Amino acid sequence: MMDTGRTPLPGIADIRAAAARLEGLIVNTGLIESEFLNEKYGARILFKPENLQRTGSFKIRGAYNKISSLPDEQRRNGVVAFSSGNHAQGVARTAQLFGIKAVIAMPSDAPFSKVDNVRRMGAEVIPFDRFGADRMAVVAPYRERGMALVPPFDDPAIIAGQGTIGLEVLEDARQKSVHIDAVIVPCGGGGMIGGISLAMKDGSPDSEIWAAEPENFDDMRRSLEAGRRMSNLPGHASICDAILTAEPGEFTFEINRHTLAGGIAVSDDATIEAMRDLASALKLVVEPGGAVGLAALGSGQVDFAGKCVVVVLSGGNVDLGSYAKIIAKS
Amino acid sequence: MMDTGRTPLPGIADIRAAAARLEGLIVNTGLIESEFLNEKYGARILFKPENLQRTGSFKIRGAYNKISSLPDEQRRNGVVAFSSGNHAQGVARTAQLFGIKAVIAMPSDAPFSKVDNVRRMGAEVIPFDRFGADRMAVVAPYRERGMALVPPFDDPAIIAGQGTIGLEVLEDARQKSVHIDAVIVPCGGGGMIGGISLAMKDGSPDSEIWAAEPENFDDMRRSLEAGRRMSNLPGHASICDAILTAEPGEFTFEINRHTLAGGIAVSDDATIEAMRDLASALKLVVEPGGAVGLAALGSGQVDFAGKCVVVVLSGGNVDLGSYAKIIAKS
Repeated sequence: MMDTGRTPLPGIADIRAAAARLEGLIVNTGLIESEFLNEKYGARILFKPENLQRTGSFKIRGAYNKISSLPDEQRRNGVVAFSSGNHAQGVARTAQLFGIKAVIAMPSDAPFSKVDNVRRMGAEVIPFDRFGADRMAVVAPYRERGMALVPPFDDPAIIAGQGTIGLEVLEDARQKSVHIDAVIVPCGGGGMIGGISLAMKDGSPDSEIWAAEPENFDDMRRSLEAGRRMSNLPGHASICDAILTAEPGEFTFEINRHTLAGGIAVSDDATIEAMRDLASALKLVVEPGGAVGLAALGSGQVDFAGKCVVVVLSGGNVDLGSYAKIIAKS
Repeated sequence: MMDTGRTPLPGIADIRAAAARLEGLIVNTGLIESEFLNEKYGARILFKPENLQRTGSFKIRGAYNKISSLPDEQRRNGVVAFSSGNHAQGVARTAQLFGIKAVIAMPSDAPFSKVDNVRRMGAEVIPFDRFGADRMAVVAPYRERGMALVPPFDDPAIIAGQGTIGLEVLEDARQKSVHIDAVIVPCGGGGMIGGISLAMKDGSPDSEIWAAEPENFDDMRRSLEAGRRMSNLPGHASICDAILTAEPGEFTFEINRHTLAGGIAVSDDATIEAMRDLASALKLVVEPGGAVGLAALGSGQVDFAGKCVVVVLSGGNVDLGSYAKIIAKS
């Protein structure tokens, strides 16, 4: 671990240790490519399809690494998390694999299908009012019983777990004998891009790492420019529900400020076009927040022409009805 | 090659030779799995996602093997094929890889997107009237110039190329240390299932091979029962456009009558449910004809409970608008 003088940040050794823990439990999602998309976008694009990961997103990597890092006696008490989305599934499936209890706090207006998914993995779902005063009070009784809180991104073990994506990318690039000029990663709280950037800076130091964010939720981009953590302004909406966070995490920003080349903000319309391209050319169902990397590549804000670019597709957990509406637009 | 006394049928050596030719040119599509689908269908299902294959379907395997098997001087003259779908793309892309001319004869009412796809691969598209008297007259001028006709399924080199899917399945099953009880394969003319069944009978002789077909287009199932080639009756329709053929091929039936356990016919409604399951649980866009294997497993006509079943997803080339309508149904 790097020592910042405060709390230790994860380093490449932690990511390698995470990869050893995850071996055989997660899917090595490989890298896939489309001749049509290479032509259309004018770059060689290697997609990292984490929508094909167990639970339909990358989140199980961090959740599993975190929970397996807990001391045995603490883990036996079970775990608790806040999430209505991909993190909830990652935590619930991991708890099921360990045979321990998971309690997931979800907003009381969460879609039934998401509640049902998590329950099918054996987790207990407790509702909370998303506009209520004190979310932590909801999980307090569980934490008092010794259940560990599994945070969604701002935690060294979570970051190290997501960083295993970077190790897979490096190994596949080596096997394909390609040099990676850039990696574009969907960015919410910044845990996944933080972990990936640590792995890439170790194995391919001159690869540029770019954060892709929805317009008006480009807190990482603005924070990198300002040199300090900036929050998103209220009053905006985006279809990219999986990556709408208020601001970068403390740990994640401390990593990303050193490792990232910058951020690229994309419109929902650009994300929709990317989702359609991913369905028609790659045959992949990708959720809005998972498709922003391709939208960022296509936006022209950064010149990737002729480069070899890895685009991370972070997940595919989208309600089929909404998905059908999105891809029906032309 | 097996000798039937007439024309030589392909054997395992031909499939191995095809795999050597295809090495590095096609994607090893692996095997993928979903805990949700295993629970829902009551079997361990290993999916072979050929929708992720180059050109979006398995067809490039056979097309490439056939074209690379042509004598050099003949191949230089180019190739010609009839197809508006997956075979057209397989032939066009292969010709592009060899730097030779491809002429694809398509019905004059083929959707523009399909014509455009093939043209983007550098092929020349010539229209023909699907209700006209003599299709062969359309391609006669090209064949007179020495261009080889690449048939869609009833050809030993095509069958051997598709059989490489079986070799990949056997190798992946070995690495996962699983025994495959059954393989369910979408079946049109029977080339893919013929090749796969030859490979499986060599490497895992007691694995049952089942053909999945649309209702009213279950010519292979009925032919297997009758012991001779049976044609489909006219006047029916199905959404499974990729696998609507009139009757089994001569070569393919001669193989399949010895290697298959039988056929399972499925309704379009069952295929739609399978497509929805594949989108929501596996995050894969699969075309109707590519999803009939899962529909067959779910139909209950054969008892696969608790078995380990490989389900081949043969392609994902479906118009996005049609696809959106299909998965929007609930």
